[in-house]
Amino acid sequence: MTTASFQDVIMTLHSFWREQGCLLWQPYNMQVGAGTNNPATLLRVLGPEPWRVAYVEPSVRPDDGRYGQNPNRMQLYYQYQVILKPDPGNPQELYLKSLETLGIDLRRHDVRFVEDNWKSPALGAWGLGWEVWLDGQEITQFTYFQQAGGIKLDPVSVEITYGLERIVLAVQGKDSAWDIQWTDDIHYRDIFLQSEIEHSKYYFDVADVEALKKTYDTYEAESRRALAAGLVIPSYDYILKCSHLFNVLDTRGAIGVTERAGYFRRMANMTKDVAKAYLEQRAQLEFPLIDNGKSWPIYKPAVLDTAIGTPPSGPADLLIEIGVEELPAEDLDSALAQLNIAGPQLLKEWRLDYQTIKIHGTPRRLVLYATQVAPRQPDEDKVIKGPPANKAFDANGQPTAVAEGFAKKQGISVTDLKATEIDGGQYVTARVKTVGRPAIEVLTEALPPLIAGIKFGGTMRWNSTGIYFSRPIRWIAALIGGAVIPFEYAGVVSGRTTYGTRPTNSTPFSINDVTEYVKTMASQGILVEIAQRRETVWSGVRKLAAEVSGTVAEDKELLDEVTNLVEQPTPLRGTFDSRFLELPRDVLITVMCKKQRYFPVEDKNGKLLPYFIAVRNGDSEHLDEVIRGNEHVLTARFSDADFFFRDDRQHHLADRTDRLKTMTFQEKLGSLYDKNQRLIRYVEPFGKLLGLKSDDLQTATAAAAIAKADQATRMVVEMTSLEGIMGREYALLEGHPAPIADAILEHYRPGEKVSPAGLLLAVADRLDSLVGLFAVGLAPTASADPFALRRAALGVVQVLLSQHIDLDLRDAIRIVAAEQPVPVTDEVQVEVLTFIGGRLRVLLLDDLKLAAFDVVDAVLAEQTHNPYRASLGIQELAKWVARSDWAALLDSFARCARITRDKPTYTLQPNALTPAESTALYQAAKQAHDHLSAGDNVDKFLTAFKPLVPAVTEFFDHVMVMDEDQSLRENRLALLQYVTALARGRADLSRLNGF
Amino acid sequence: MTTASFQDVIMTLHSFWREQGCLLWQPYNMQVGAGTNNPATLLRVLGPEPWRVAYVEPSVRPDDGRYGQNPNRMQLYYQYQVILKPDPGNPQELYLKSLETLGIDLRRHDVRFVEDNWKSPALGAWGLGWEVWLDGQEITQFTYFQQAGGIKLDPVSVEITYGLERIVLAVQGKDSAWDIQWTDDIHYRDIFLQSEIEHSKYYFDVADVEALKKTYDTYEAESRRALAAGLVIPSYDYILKCSHLFNVLDTRGAIGVTERAGYFRRMANMTKDVAKAYLEQRAQLEFPLIDNGKSWPIYKPAVLDTAIGTPPSGPADLLIEIGVEELPAEDLDSALAQLNIAGPQLLKEWRLDYQTIKIHGTPRRLVLYATQVAPRQPDEDKVIKGPPANKAFDANGQPTAVAEGFAKKQGISVTDLKATEIDGGQYVTARVKTVGRPAIEVLTEALPPLIAGIKFGGTMRWNSTGIYFSRPIRWIAALIGGAVIPFEYAGVVSGRTTYGTRPTNSTPFSINDVTEYVKTMASQGILVEIAQRRETVWSGVRKLAAEVSGTVAEDKELLDEVTNLVEQPTPLRGTFDSRFLELPRDVLITVMCKKQRYFPVEDKNGKLLPYFIAVRNGDSEHLDEVIRGNEHVLTARFSDADFFFRDDRQHHLADRTDRLKTMTFQEKLGSLYDKNQRLIRYVEPFGKLLGLKSDDLQTATAAAAIAKADQATRMVVEMTSLEGIMGREYALLEGHPAPIADAILEHYRPGEKVSPAGLLLAVADRLDSLVGLFAVGLAPTASADPFALRRAALGVVQVLLSQHIDLDLRDAIRIVAAEQPVPVTDEVQVEVLTFIGGRLRVLLLDDLKLAAFDVVDAVLAEQTHNPYRASLGIQELAKWVARSDWAALLDSFARCARITRDKPTYTLQPNALTPAESTALYQAAKQAHDHLSAGDNVDKFLTAFKPLVPAVTEFFDHVMVMDEDQSLRENRLALLQYVTALARGRADLSRLNGF
Repeated sequence: MTTASFQDVIMTLHSFWREQGCLLWQPYNMQVGAGTNNPATLLRVLGPEPWRVAYVEPSVRPDDGRYGQNPNRMQLYYQYQVILKPDPGNPQELYLKSLETLGIDLRRHDVRFVEDNWKSPALGAWGLGWEVWLDGQEITQFTYFQQAGGIKLDPVSVEITYGLERIVLAVQGKDSAWDIQWTDDIHYRDIFLQSEIEHSKYYFDVADVEALKKTYDTYEAESRRALAAGLVIPSYDYILKCSHLFNVLDTRGAIGVTERAGYFRRMANMTKDVAKAYLEQRAQLEFPLIDNGKSWPIYKPAVLDTAIGTPPSGPADLLIEIGVEELPAEDLDSALAQLNIAGPQLLKEWRLDYQTIKIHGTPRRLVLYATQVAPRQPDEDKVIKGPPANKAFDANGQPTAVAEGFAKKQGISVTDLKATEIDGGQYVTARVKTVGRPAIEVLTEALPPLIAGIKFGGTMRWNSTGIYFSRPIRWIAALIGGAVIPFEYAGVVSGRTTYGTRPTNSTPFSINDVTEYVKTMASQGILVEIAQRRETVWSGVRKLAAEVSGTVAEDKELLDEVTNLVEQPTPLRGTFDSRFLELPRDVLITVMCKKQRYFPVEDKNGKLLPYFIAVRNGDSEHLDEVIRGNEHVLTARFSDADFFFRDDRQHHLADRTDRLKTMTFQEKLGSLYDKNQRLIRYVEPFGKLLGLKSDDLQTATAAAAIAKADQATRMVVEMTSLEGIMGREYALLEGHPAPIADAILEHYRPGEKVSPAGLLLAVADRLDSLVGLFAVGLAPTASADPFALRRAALGVVQVLLSQHIDLDLRDAIRIVAAEQPVPVTDEVQVEVLTFIGGRLRVLLLDDLKLAAFDVVDAVLAEQTHNPYRASLGIQELAKWVARSDWAALLDSFARCARITRDKPTYTLQPNALTPAESTALYQAAKQAHDHLSAGDNVDKFLTAFKPLVPAVTEFFDHVMVMDEDQSLRENRLALLQYVTALARGRADLSRLNGF
Repeated sequence: MTTASFQDVIMTLHSFWREQGCLLWQPYNMQVGAGTNNPATLLRVLGPEPWRVAYVEPSVRPDDGRYGQNPNRMQLYYQYQVILKPDPGNPQELYLKSLETLGIDLRRHDVRFVEDNWKSPALGAWGLGWEVWLDGQEITQFTYFQQAGGIKLDPVSVEITYGLERIVLAVQGKDSAWDIQWTDDIHYRDIFLQSEIEHSKYYFDVADVEALKKTYDTYEAESRRALAAGLVIPSYDYILKCSHLFNVLDTRGAIGVTERAGYFRRMANMTKDVAKAYLEQRAQLEFPLIDNGKSWPIYKPAVLDTAIGTPPSGPADLLIEIGVEELPAEDLDSALAQLNIAGPQLLKEWRLDYQTIKIHGTPRRLVLYATQVAPRQPDEDKVIKGPPANKAFDANGQPTAVAEGFAKKQGISVTDLKATEIDGGQYVTARVKTVGRPAIEVLTEALPPLIAGIKFGGTMRWNSTGIYFSRPIRWIAALIGGAVIPFEYAGVVSGRTTYGTRPTNSTPFSINDVTEYVKTMASQGILVEIAQRRETVWSGVRKLAAEVSGTVAEDKELLDEVTNLVEQPTPLRGTFDSRFLELPRDVLITVMCKKQRYFPVEDKNGKLLPYFIAVRNGDSEHLDEVIRGNEHVLTARFSDADFFFRDDRQHHLADRTDRLKTMTFQEKLGSLYDKNQRLIRYVEPFGKLLGLKSDDLQTATAAAAIAKADQATRMVVEMTSLEGIMGREYALLEGHPAPIADAILEHYRPGEKVSPAGLLLAVADRLDSLVGLFAVGLAPTASADPFALRRAALGVVQVLLSQHIDLDLRDAIRIVAAEQPVPVTDEVQVEVLTFIGGRLRVLLLDDLKLAAFDVVDAVLAEQTHNPYRASLGIQELAKWVARSDWAALLDSFARCARITRDKPTYTLQPNALTPAESTALYQAAKQAHDHLSAGDNVDKFLTAFKPLVPAVTEFFDHVMVMDEDQSLRENRLALLQYVTALARGRADLSRLNGF
């Protein structure tokens, strides 16, 4: 048998989706990054008109160019795009059926829906959905489109984007896309390899940055001109051209992190305007396709057993299974946690007795299981307090309208009202007897709000009910004993039908005996109990590791995630070529854990072994095929990393400066090269501020020289999370001493054990960003912090605190400000300090919980500029505040402070003080001042102040401060100012409670 | 039954061509004008690697935008592109089969292959082939690709480009593309109409000319950069982008006629470089696909009857039928004319007696039919003259090596040589007896050169034999009596099989009885005799016209062409909406005759009637469907013209000046507006030169003001041949007086009856082009005349001659030169004059055949600057040359001229002349000079000179010119110079034969 060729696969998909009513469309005649950009998607998803479309889209991703050296990553690949608008009700099942039509047997593979929240800032678009994994390989993007061009979509569209090469790899059993048969005679390499190599070179090395930037501007202007003339599609076309140009420039390394945000904003604005205009146009045309789709096949959910069943007469078990499309791991956790609270609460509130309640869950179902739930609520007999008797009855003892209203509300006759004394007053009361309602009736009412009450971080709509949930709800099984609890939620009617696992085509089956639910599910391979599933995973993982004399480091996060990704966990072990072990450990682990959700295997010395352990969702049938697929994927990923690693090492970090020049940090603040140059210049003055020793200073200087160089490496461009890590790695490989290499990493991630050099760079770099970006007007707003300046500020205070660094930020800011290529006013410097202070306050209050807010604020009012010192002061003040004599002490200080508040500063003339109590206070205060030195903090201040308390008391008892004689009065006020000055630079006690 | 939807048609074509081994490809992700631009065509056709590919290509033709108002013309339409490399042998039949697969029954339609020689200057590509017409509608381009990117293709590729919309119109029986069902639910209009309107507006009215020109430059530079880096495809991509930008600019009217040539040159150069680089790259890769195509189906020509037959023993009829793919009408004429000469010649040369010989032909066959051809050559008995006897025999009478060589060559023994006296010398002779060879043997040898000897204006290759012909030769029937004349030509083996008409699927059948050939063909519906076919057409056309009381004007050209386009002519009459009759007659006729090859029908007053007559290739079955199709096509064409006409009339010609500003004439010479402005300025000085009367001058001034305005009308942009015609038409409609309107037309086409104003503008405009373009270095070269300057120069001299205008071009050129926006040197002015002189010479010599070349040259040497006067002079001189006394007269003049040749000019001192013969000659010459005035031409000159002849004779008999006395000598030379000066400005007699 000949396997299907690439072109056959396309033809098969065309036939399949044509049967589903899709219009077969053509690729767009522009270079687009994805089928989504084709107006057949991006514009047609707008507005109410039904639309089904399917098409191939050659997708250009310049920065995925690998010179033809990667088995499945290329700057050009083929998407197969399907849009179903509105949601047909079973899009996942249709999709899986299409895979089967292509010859992908779900029993022989591991097909997974892995959370992926898609977002395109440039398109003003987002949606929730999944990457579909085939044996660990992402083969499809499956998204419920929520917004496009900044417009909320109604109805929502289902977007299915197949990665054709990757699917064909599986269909043809090939290891590399280059080996794919496009026809029986011609391979993928025959038609694409040469052009892949060439395009990679063009995008990475040749494209003319300046000229293309100008072209971008031209096209942006054309887009605007066209739109101004009411021409939607021509305008949109230019957005696509801009988008491609942006991608080229970006790949060429010509767009810095911050500049990128600007480009995205420009593209998003254009797209929004076009989308708005398109929608207005369609409205004006009266939505001509509003009746489209009449002939499309209609999905009917399975109802195997229509019997409602008899409501239980005695206590019976309650099962609620909310069937969903694959929930993200976090959302599953969150939902279960919420149900753990809401479930018992619900039964209690609705007065349904029960014995036990358990919450289970898999990616596809949220389960509430309660045992021995009462068949009905108990009856009630309550006395309800009404209005005061004198309002309820008139002078004649006749019931007023008020009484009648109350009686009516309670459902009794007005003659049944009684006057009763309550808390010493006369009130009318009603005695109300309520007959308990049957559990089934109550639950019918209570369950929809229960489901509606589950909240998620990200939610989506999918059908015309407009209900939001983490992912679509597709079925609800709701039974008490043998009876269905009938209700409808999000368009789903409850029943007794549930569905099997993905590998078994989600075959529907009836839950006939509630009590057997867990067992029944288990017989289908589904482990609904989380703990059991986690244990199955973990023991399986460890066993497989042990078989090759390896161990798996505990990684709770990964284990939890994997547990939440499967219904039927079957761990499997794969191998990879041990040559990849030459790659840095962090790279391998990042790839395995973060990208693939694999468990890495180590030997007893903690060295990585050439194995990985994945967990299949399904049984062990045809596990070898699944293993082979996963191995293939990892090989491709590692090849990619290997390519980066080898390529990066062709250059020394020091030689990357040219490349850094092309990477804009921010338009007005220059390139990353400029930023790095500033960093170099900060070393000396910061070294002085921080009191660095000379060898640390040398280290800092050397590290600064190449601190940003790894930004120009392919590895970091590809996996940003490795910034610093790769800088350190490459520095070491080049022969730089370890302290220098460490400082590079620390400058990105100053950990707990940061070196002085690393600390210097970390603080200077962050302050450079803060001061520069504030100066050019890019301070964060309430809703947006595109440059992550909050994180930068927090980083500064965290490292200063953790390393006990006494640093006056005002000095540091002044140094940084002087090096900016733009003017930095004093106001801006104050703004930056205030902004950092804000982060500091949150950190101290909410994270470290050092003290009550008033204590924190009191110290920060005087010491924001020196976070570490402030933290000490806070701790000291907190202790004083806790003392039994604190009230007296604070009161004493307050008497001095309050009277001088809002007064100008007067000059104290000690010799002119009268009477003696004044002089005595002055003497005591002088002694306190003499005891304090500039570096002294709150504790020293209060210790020095405490002895003044009696003198303060005496003073106020005997001296009239506000004397009529002006000079006397002012000198006495000056004395009190002299006293309160003890607090200056330490704490503003007026901010304390009780002041 | 549901008819096939648009998307079904694509799927069906995919399936069909996949079966033929085609790789199914995707549209290119750029805006391209045609599938040809896709590298899957343009690059893959280069080099030796076999390649078959099929794909859809959305094709963008900005200037075809009609704001959605035309039923089948849009700025975007869908091509279906097929490349078969090499030619499979039956590409036409495969193509027709594909139509049948789509449900197009060849019996119900008129499918025609209409000559179309495709050429893309921008791609450096050309090929020969056809437009395929379905009931008059062009539905496909069918081309044998000969060259691409400036590279000769080997093998040749067959390119089939379906116009999908037009095919689907036929399949679905719709009248407008907008009504096409793309799916069962969705119409073409639903997805394209709005965007069509918008794109039309963008391309015609909105695009930013300056910015896009800059972008063009940027992309051109990127193409170069990429190629310099060895990146073929990225470089090519930018060419495509340039090409689209060019199309946009062009549509926007921003590119003038001459500037266009520059753009094409730039694109062609880029494409050539890319093509060259691609081919080198493939060679370096060792042509990896060289073995491609092993699994493709193989075509075997039909051989119904393998019997060779018995060679005739007596005289028998000879039939040669060369079966070809549809020949262009002109080529058919030409081939038949050549065979009419070569046929008899061949039989004579090869000494085969015959009775009659006739040459027949249809688009698909060239036929030579001779009756009673002898079964063999007669025997021969010849005496052949050899070398001189004294060389053939030595002194001893022994034969030498020379004799032996001669004998051997004649195939006789040396002893059979004889010495014979011939013309008074002794020679050896050989008596050679040749036995006549059988006719069949002779013809086997003679027929291939006969076919090879047929020459065409344009020829092409198609298969590996590399043979050139007008179109591919697909079969050869060659019979004498009952026997096949066996030979092979162009890979075709002769036999007795021929093929029926296209509508009958070219069913093969055997020619069993040669004598019945014409009758047999007729029984298949094929009229091989041209005259009979022409008569069938013409009588049918007239009859159909008469049926509606109409007549058809004789149009020999059209009748000949139509006759040559069909094998089985069946005239048909269609109607069109009479509202179209409001369009200018010239427009309607241009559309019907030139575009559609229809006969227009007029009433007895010569007014057009709403009918047309077309001629189907096929019988009358289902003629109604064919009529309907043709009516549909004409309606679309007329709609287009109507759209132009209505749209054009929205503006006055005078208001088009702004638009003319955007139409570049030539970069350095400004816009068409600038050119028109110059034209206005020429009126006054030219009026003086030409002696125009004041009312003519007024007319010229008014006409000049709007002379170029029609270039900015859509009608002229679309049908350039209507330039001037529309200018006149629109001017009249606007209310301009007829003389002004006429002058506009005449300025483009100064006919036989040109008005003075029209003549002025015609001459001035052409001289403006000549002078300007010469000045900027764009004079024509031997191989290239992109600005048609030869035609311009010819136009000038033609009108001057035909209108008998005495104009000194030097004055005219001077006026024009002064108005150019670039400096025009005297040298350039001379060059222009010389160039015009060259055209004048050709015209006088070759076309008008006024006189022998020496006479022409003699006059032109003195009068090139005034063509009309020169022509008169030539005619006068020619008469003199023919006189019996001419030799004496010329000799007399020559004596004077020769001796002064190459001498400086001396000052004549009449009083110092001696002896008397000198003085006498002087007196005679002076008299002659006195008789001549400046305007006198050759006749007057010679009349005046004739009396000098005796004086000249006397002079030379008695006077020694080259006297030793210098002053005497020089004065005598001065005298002779005085005599010869009579010729100055009239003729240079030294150029005459006999001088």
